[in-house]
Amino acid sequence: MPLNLQAKKFKNTSDLRESGNPVDVLHHLLFDDMEAVNALIIERLQSNVPLIPELGKHLIESGGKRLRPLLTLASAHLCGYKGRHHIPLAASVEFIHTATLLHDDVVDQSDLRRGKISANALWGNKPSVLVGDFLFSRSFELMVEANSIEVLAILSKASSKIAEGEVAQLLTTHNLATTEHDYLKVIESKTAQLFAAATRLGPVLADFEELHKDALEKYGLFLGTAFQLVDDVLDYKADDPLLGKKMGNDFKEGKVTLPIIIAYKNADFKEKLFWKRTFEEGKQDPSDLEEAVAYFHKYNAFEKTIEKAKSYQAKALDELEYFAGSPIQDALIELTNFVVNRSY
Amino acid sequence: MPLNLQAKKFKNTSDLRESGNPVDVLHHLLFDDMEAVNALIIERLQSNVPLIPELGKHLIESGGKRLRPLLTLASAHLCGYKGRHHIPLAASVEFIHTATLLHDDVVDQSDLRRGKISANALWGNKPSVLVGDFLFSRSFELMVEANSIEVLAILSKASSKIAEGEVAQLLTTHNLATTEHDYLKVIESKTAQLFAAATRLGPVLADFEELHKDALEKYGLFLGTAFQLVDDVLDYKADDPLLGKKMGNDFKEGKVTLPIIIAYKNADFKEKLFWKRTFEEGKQDPSDLEEAVAYFHKYNAFEKTIEKAKSYQAKALDELEYFAGSPIQDALIELTNFVVNRSY
Repeated sequence: MPLNLQAKKFKNTSDLRESGNPVDVLHHLLFDDMEAVNALIIERLQSNVPLIPELGKHLIESGGKRLRPLLTLASAHLCGYKGRHHIPLAASVEFIHTATLLHDDVVDQSDLRRGKISANALWGNKPSVLVGDFLFSRSFELMVEANSIEVLAILSKASSKIAEGEVAQLLTTHNLATTEHDYLKVIESKTAQLFAAATRLGPVLADFEELHKDALEKYGLFLGTAFQLVDDVLDYKADDPLLGKKMGNDFKEGKVTLPIIIAYKNADFKEKLFWKRTFEEGKQDPSDLEEAVAYFHKYNAFEKTIEKAKSYQAKALDELEYFAGSPIQDALIELTNFVVNRSY
Repeated sequence: MPLNLQAKKFKNTSDLRESGNPVDVLHHLLFDDMEAVNALIIERLQSNVPLIPELGKHLIESGGKRLRPLLTLASAHLCGYKGRHHIPLAASVEFIHTATLLHDDVVDQSDLRRGKISANALWGNKPSVLVGDFLFSRSFELMVEANSIEVLAILSKASSKIAEGEVAQLLTTHNLATTEHDYLKVIESKTAQLFAAATRLGPVLADFEELHKDALEKYGLFLGTAFQLVDDVLDYKADDPLLGKKMGNDFKEGKVTLPIIIAYKNADFKEKLFWKRTFEEGKQDPSDLEEAVAYFHKYNAFEKTIEKAKSYQAKALDELEYFAGSPIQDALIELTNFVVNRSY
C-alpha cells in the first residue's frame, strides 16, 4: 500500500479507518490547508522562463507524500495557531525539500526518483541545478511572507545544516571507516533537520514558550531520524516501482547506511575483503547484492537498524506529551508509530 | 592592470591617484568595513565538514574584486548609515555571488575561473553543487542578522531573479534566434539584479524614502547591465590569465551575447551559414574564432555593444544625482565611468 500522493478527503471516518495510513488521516484533518498549500506551490512555480514551470510540473506530478508540509501544518494546528502564515511556510518547506532532491539527483546520477524518470535524466544536469536554485530562492520568498525573523532564522539555519549534511554524506560514500556516530550525524543533518524546522514552526507562529518550541523541534528531529533509518532498511527490500526505488540502490552507489556499518563491523576476514572490493572499490558483480543481503541477515543488521529507529520513535513520542490531546496529536502519534512499522 | 584582489590601504592620496582604478579608491575609502567583511566571510566558511572550508579557502584565494560587497558598503555610506548591519549584508551578497559562480562552473564545465582551476575541475561536480548550496544557505543566515524583513524580501527576490536568469540563459545557448531584448533580459536577471539589490540595501538600512531606494536600485541595475555588456566584449579581447579568461570562451560555449546578435542580424547568406554551423550546431574549427571576430569588426559589433553599455552608464550616473556630494559619491561616479572604459 503506497503512501497517498495527494490530499484526499474521506467521505466518512470509517473509510479513513480502513485506509489505516496515518498520513491519510493527517491529509483528512488538514484538507483545506493542504489544498491551499498545493495551490500556492503551483502558483509559485510559475515563471516567464518556460523551462521552470515545465520542470516544476514534472516535480509536482511526481507527487511524493508531502510529509514535510503536512508536519508544518500539523504543528501549527497542534498549537492552536489561528493565522495563515503556516500556508506559505508549508509550501516553503516543500520547496526546500524539492530543491534538495533535484540537486541530489544531479549528484547521485540516479535515474529514478519516485517512480518517474528523474528530472536530470530528462533535462540534463544544467537545468536541474539551476531550477533547484530557483526553488530554493522561491522558498525564501515564501518564508518572508510569514513576516518573522525568528522563522527565517530557523529555516535558513536548517538549510545550512542540510547542505552540510549532503557534503558530509559525500565524504562517507564508499567509505567503510564511517562509524554509526558519523552516519547518525549525516542523517540528522540531511533529513531530520528539515523535519525539525517544520515542526518548530507551529509553536513559533502560535507564540508558545521556548519549552514547547524545543519539544516540537525535538519531535521532528527524532521522527526524521527514525524515518531515515527505516528508509535505509527499505532500500534493501523489494523494488518499489511506485516509489521509484530499486532494491539495493544504496549498495550500488556506495552509500553507507547502518546495515552496512553493522555488517562490516562484525565481518570476518573473508567478508571484510568482500566489502572492500564491492563497496569501497565499487567492483560489483550482479550476484554481490544478494551476498551483501545475506550478511545483513547473518548479523541481524536490519533488525538492529529498526531497533535503533524504534529508540528514536520512543523519544519522539515523549516530546508529544507536552501537548494537550487532540485529533491532530492522535494522528501525529499514529504517524510516529507508522514510520517505524511501515513496509514501504 | 588587473583589478586589485584585496582590500588595500594606500599610504597617501597621491599613490591612490596613480593607481587610477576607482575600485582601489572604494577599497581605500571603505577599508575598515571591507576588512570586517573579509573576516566575516572567512568565519562563515567554517564547518565541521572538512571539504567545506577547503573548497571555501580555494574560492577566497581565487579572490575576485569583491565588487558587490563594495557596492553594498558604498550604498550604506552614501546614505550616511551609521549601524553595522551592512557588514553581514555585504558578506551575504558575496556568498550569493560565489554560490552562483560555483553552480555556473558546474553548468558550463569551464576549466578556469579567475585564473585558477575551477572548483569543479578540482573537486568534481558533486561538491560544487553542494558547497554552492551551503554558501547560499549561509548567505540567508547572514541576511537574517540584519533583522529586517524588507532586506530579506529584497535579497530573496533578487536570488529568484538570478536563478531565473541563469535558466533563461540556458535557453538562449546555441540559439541564434535570441534577440537583443531577450539578451538584455537575461543579463538584467543574472548579473544586474544582484548589483541592484546590493545598492538598494544602503538606503533601506538608513531608512531613506522610497525615492532614494529606487534611485540606488536603478543605479545598481544600470551599472550591472553596463558591466556585463562590457564583459561580453572583453571576452573576445586577448586572453587574461589573471582573470582566468580565455579569449572567445563565449563563442566556444555557444553563449549568445550582443556582438553575436549584431553580427548575425547583419550577416549575408554565407555568413549566416557560418554562424549556424559554428554557433548553433557547435561544429567549430580552430580558425573559426578568428573569422567570427572578423565579422564583429565588419559590423562594428564591439563598438555598438560598448555604445549600448554607455547608454546604461549615462542612466546610472543620472540616478546618483539624487544624493549629496561626498567622496563616496565621487568614487561611485568614477567607478561607473571606469566600468565602460576598462580594458580588463
